[in-house]
Amino acid sequence: ARRMLNRGLAPVDVAHLLESTPPKEREILWGLLDPELHGDVLQYLNDDVQIEFLNRMDAEQLLTATEGLDVDDLADLLQQLPNTVIQEVLQSMEAQERQRVEEVLSYPEDTAGGLMNPDAITIRPDITLDVVMRYLRRHERLPDATDTLLVVTRRDELIGILPINRLLVSDVSVLVREVMETDFHSIQATASDSDVATLFQKHDLISAPVVSVDGLLLGRITIDDVVDVIREDAEHQVMSMAGLDEDEDTFAPALRTSRRRAVWLGINLVAATIVSIAIGFFEDTIQQIAALAVLMPIVSSMGGIAGSQTLTVLIRGIALGHVSGANVRWLLVRELLVGMTNGLIWAVVVGAMSVIRFDDIRLGEIIAMAMVINLTVATLAGTLIPVLLKKLKIDPALSGGVLLTTITDVVGFVAFLGLATALYL
Amino acid sequence: ARRMLNRGLAPVDVAHLLESTPPKEREILWGLLDPELHGDVLQYLNDDVQIEFLNRMDAEQLLTATEGLDVDDLADLLQQLPNTVIQEVLQSMEAQERQRVEEVLSYPEDTAGGLMNPDAITIRPDITLDVVMRYLRRHERLPDATDTLLVVTRRDELIGILPINRLLVSDVSVLVREVMETDFHSIQATASDSDVATLFQKHDLISAPVVSVDGLLLGRITIDDVVDVIREDAEHQVMSMAGLDEDEDTFAPALRTSRRRAVWLGINLVAATIVSIAIGFFEDTIQQIAALAVLMPIVSSMGGIAGSQTLTVLIRGIALGHVSGANVRWLLVRELLVGMTNGLIWAVVVGAMSVIRFDDIRLGEIIAMAMVINLTVATLAGTLIPVLLKKLKIDPALSGGVLLTTITDVVGFVAFLGLATALYL
Ligand SMILES: [Mg+2]
Ligand SMILES: [Mg+2]
Ligand SMILES: [Mg+2]
Ligand SMILES: [Mg+2]
Ligand SMILES: [Mg+2]
Ligand SMILES: [Mg+2]
Ligand SMILES: [Mg+2]
Ligand SMILES: [Mg+2]
Ligand SMILES: [Mg+2]
Ligand SMILES: [Mg+2]
Ligand SMILES: [Mg+2]
Ligand SMILES: [Mg+2]
Ligand SMILES: [Mg+2]
Repeated sequence: ARRMLNRGLAPVDVAHLLESTPPKEREILWGLLDPELHGDVLQYLNDDVQIEFLNRMDAEQLLTATEGLDVDDLADLLQQLPNTVIQEVLQSMEAQERQRVEEVLSYPEDTAGGLMNPDAITIRPDITLDVVMRYLRRHERLPDATDTLLVVTRRDELIGILPINRLLVSDVSVLVREVMETDFHSIQATASDSDVATLFQKHDLISAPVVSVDGLLLGRITIDDVVDVIREDAEHQVMSMAGLDEDEDTFAPALRTSRRRAVWLGINLVAATIVSIAIGFFEDTIQQIAALAVLMPIVSSMGGIAGSQTLTVLIRGIALGHVSGANVRWLLVRELLVGMTNGLIWAVVVGAMSVIRFDDIRLGEIIAMAMVINLTVATLAGTLIPVLLKKLKIDPALSGGVLLTTITDVVGFVAFLGLATALYL
Repeated sequence: ARRMLNRGLAPVDVAHLLESTPPKEREILWGLLDPELHGDVLQYLNDDVQIEFLNRMDAEQLLTATEGLDVDDLADLLQQLPNTVIQEVLQSMEAQERQRVEEVLSYPEDTAGGLMNPDAITIRPDITLDVVMRYLRRHERLPDATDTLLVVTRRDELIGILPINRLLVSDVSVLVREVMETDFHSIQATASDSDVATLFQKHDLISAPVVSVDGLLLGRITIDDVVDVIREDAEHQVMSMAGLDEDEDTFAPALRTSRRRAVWLGINLVAATIVSIAIGFFEDTIQQIAALAVLMPIVSSMGGIAGSQTLTVLIRGIALGHVSGANVRWLLVRELLVGMTNGLIWAVVVGAMSVIRFDDIRLGEIIAMAMVINLTVATLAGTLIPVLLKKLKIDPALSGGVLLTTITDVVGFVAFLGLATALYL
């Protein structure tokens, strides 16, 4: 097993195996792993598992483990550690390497600066392509995903890029200046990682230079790290809809899992209590017509579904940049029509079902009216909630759902029970 | 505006603008667009909007519009059209181009074959790198994302790859055979696009060759198209959780939107009716103790949340390949503990709240017991549902949620109302 682990599997596969293993077996596997491979494997682990292993390494072990890692990957690992340990590790590094890592560490993890790698190959504008070719040939190997050479001035200002593919088809006697592209995508170090991802996806980039506010070259971002950002953003959305964190270990122990999930349950209890209080106002009505309690979940659940459909479309629309102030009105009208249409259709069905079940025409009328009201309010709320949350800079994926269902539950129950109180009693 | 649209914006930005515009304005913008740009813009539109414009173009217009598109992108567009139109367009193409497009079209859209582009640059193993360099220099430009040259035999068998970055640092007098990599990732044409995405992400690939079952080179897949697959898969998951399609136009008209969403509401109505029938058995109990109806939503909503947290963790775990037969048992035990722990904690809180609110100790005991039962069942169901659906090859993101909440609602209500019936009456 040890041999298999250390020779047979790529580090990324070892990481996957560790992530797929419950705590005890994971311990054993980690113990079997060659310490020199620790860093290589660590960089591929999700944050939760990563920190578990990082926490018990001392600065010296960390240094051995992380030798040979790319600067960006090393920075990612260090970012997980307490400040004192970071300092210790940095102290024991060579001056140039330390400076590079410190530069990356000076930017938040979720910015272009935090994603970048200072491994770009730079060239001057006033040399010939022939000289460039000879310069490249002096390298043992080129950094991964090197699809462009970056053209900089003596002061390190980025003035152009030379795609390798252009270098390969151009006459070798011309100057870099003559063939370089001057209209290229460069990224501010402070740009958010999601904006970086959008830029890469839109323009099919493989790498892009990162610059400071003064246009000085700081490093470059490569597509492989952008792919990781895209995957993480997607996971973030799905996980936060259930109040969870995308970094979570699939095999986190029961106690830690319970603690983390309890918070979200508590928030939801507040919402459920509000709904319950709303129903409380109609306790007498229910006492007299218990059939109302039997039908209540239909009204609220249909409203919840209709609302969450709209919410999902809006959250996606906002994320894709489709939704802006100018067209929210159009969407609001569309959703109003959709809510009313589906409200009417299902009101007829549910109304008829109720009449048959309880042999009571008035009850059918009441639930039908409540359905129309609730589905209409649901689609309107589904449109407005994410737009407002976005304005308040609150993540709509996290809190949109609870807010929405609280509204649809309260509206649904109050409409249904309120109409019953008014029309029956 | 016309000038801006045709000159000032990149086709991908025009596509984004069209996607961000309600139907009427979208018509106007499309009318202003230079027909030669139609194909370029079309390839970036989402399927729903794409088909809207494709449908009113005849074969000739299609041919003009799609001139110069990459074979893979052209195939994507054609796949949206009825078979007769596809044939018409293919007939009017040159023999070689037609054959290439037909090859791609012969594979389903969501496979490696459907993603591939036959634009790979191939070389023979027994030439020197110097000859390779001269061969490349004969090209006007190299295909995008060309990070490797593919080494094939006379019979088109793929036997190695030569990374451009290795070509650039190697001695030009050696043979391709001596420096090529023979241990590389190649993809079967029938592989699923999600597996392709996983391979690219794991191994940080920029392009990868696609081969037939006999190892013949068919084409290559590039990272930019893989990024689109990753984004679409992520959208698919989020959208299908609300019974929606990821291809949906954000600005689809009200009628079409209502029709699409109605189906999901109907499915949900079936679920809600089952829940309502379950409550119906306890109509008499509710008639006597209306407070039960007031508290009902708390039990069901807490169960729903607890279950959906587990469901989300499991669906992610399955998608990431963490969950397998061997460790489902461990997860089941963990979730059982989590459900019981959080069930107990919140049972105490909700029980106390109920005692205070209704001044009735027995009611507090009943709701507390129902909470423990429901949260425990919820976490177990959240574990088992996705595992079973996966076995049945049903998408757990689509149907997992409805199934789960139906179970937690029924269990919650039956436990709560059943206990009340047994202990009160
Ligand atoms: Mg990380
Ligand atoms: Mg992030
Ligand atoms: Mg980083
Ligand atoms: Mg793209
Ligand atoms: Mg990197
Ligand atoms: Mg990386
Ligand atoms: Mg498409
Ligand atoms: Mg797909
Ligand atoms: Mg395709
Ligand atoms: Mg990767
Ligand atoms: Mg392509
Ligand atoms: Mg493409
Ligand atoms: Mg599609």
